[in-house]
Amino acid sequence: MNEQLLLSNIRSVLIRQEETIIFALIERAQFRRNPVAYQAGALREAIGEESIVGYMLRETEKTHARMRRYLSPDEHPFYVGLPAPVLPPLRMDENPLRPNQININPNIRTTYEQEVVPYICASGDDGQYGSTAVCDVQSLQSLSRRIHYGKFVAESKYRMQPARYDAAIAAGDREALTREITDAEVETHVLERVRLKSQTYGQDTGGDATQSKIDPERVVDVYARWIIPLTKEVQVLYLLARNERQ
Amino acid sequence: MNEQLLLSNIRSVLIRQEETIIFALIERAQFRRNPVAYQAGALREAIGEESIVGYMLRETEKTHARMRRYLSPDEHPFYVGLPAPVLPPLRMDENPLRPNQININPNIRTTYEQEVVPYICASGDDGQYGSTAVCDVQSLQSLSRRIHYGKFVAESKYRMQPARYDAAIAAGDREALTREITDAEVETHVLERVRLKSQTYGQDTGGDATQSKIDPERVVDVYARWIIPLTKEVQVLYLLARNERQ
Repeated sequence: MNEQLLLSNIRSVLIRQEETIIFALIERAQFRRNPVAYQAGALREAIGEESIVGYMLRETEKTHARMRRYLSPDEHPFYVGLPAPVLPPLRMDENPLRPNQININPNIRTTYEQEVVPYICASGDDGQYGSTAVCDVQSLQSLSRRIHYGKFVAESKYRMQPARYDAAIAAGDREALTREITDAEVETHVLERVRLKSQTYGQDTGGDATQSKIDPERVVDVYARWIIPLTKEVQVLYLLARNERQ
Repeated sequence: MNEQLLLSNIRSVLIRQEETIIFALIERAQFRRNPVAYQAGALREAIGEESIVGYMLRETEKTHARMRRYLSPDEHPFYVGLPAPVLPPLRMDENPLRPNQININPNIRTTYEQEVVPYICASGDDGQYGSTAVCDVQSLQSLSRRIHYGKFVAESKYRMQPARYDAAIAAGDREALTREITDAEVETHVLERVRLKSQTYGQDTGGDATQSKIDPERVVDVYARWIIPLTKEVQVLYLLARNERQ
């Protein structure tokens, strides 16, 4: 099997992404919720209808698109109409995924802005919109990468046991697929590891302050309530699309 | 004294920045040295004389400048001629620093590209120039912030004991100033803490692999050889400039 599809390799990519996500959430949690940063048209004269976070995200994606970020099968942009890459395509390992158009970033962004931010940040406005937006771009990009990695997970699971999924795919049965791809033991293991990492990274090591930068249980909840379910959603969408015209 | 100048507050800012720096170095060390990414004109037709990393850094700074990042006294751009902020100025606490033009980013960038990257990355070229550039922007920004925080350190030290520095400042005696601002005990403490953090964050927690993502001693060396000396350089430059027309 393609190396990228070995479940052990996928797991180590996902494990490595945990640090990036936890770190991004810790950084964001320094600032207040700052609802103004998510308001369309808050700076209408300067940046039009885009919110501050949206503006920062789109500008970042433009630059990253030129650096061919979105040619990689594990990267998905939030915006359409991005500029063409200026870097020549990388000779990459063969893309092991089936061709697909799945991109749940609109859902990820809404979930992040409306549920995750209010959950991890103190309410109110500290005026730090620029820093907020920088952190949000980091969070959104790392969440998107993690969640869409579900495609690799699904392809890998399918290839190991196609018969397990074929009937549900043919029937378009989402619930059955969700049941089949769910591994409660692995999920528990992920949450335990995230708890441990959040406790470690969230501490003010060596500082005088002994309080945590973020409640580690909040980070665990972000995984349990949003990241894991959204990754499973990607897996199911990907398996369903596997049946469409190839 | 201004809260930003309390040595205990400065220390906790510097301690918090350690995570960001260590993390950025760990991320960068995933990739090879990729000398092409630092070559001026490597993509001449697409982005002109700028290197790939330079291009990414300048584009990022343009966006961040619009978000008024460089109005903050602890932020220093690598590029000049950046666009004006579109966000209205933040009502910030009074800037506790003396007016000064010190910006050693050219030095930080050369040091990083020519010394730090070859020290932390395996030699060779893996073609991952886009990811390399994204990591480098993160590293350079976090290093610049840490190193220029020396201004706050110097102002704080000066206000506590002006008489200790006045003669050396008047004489323009860099060596004497370097001696006076050096606290070997604090430096040892910083290095010990960085070692501990690098050991913790650099581990593949929970993964099957037991090897480190980066040799923690390399991170300690980056602090000892480059970050601490450059921070002290900023302190000395700042103290010397304290005497110039205010």
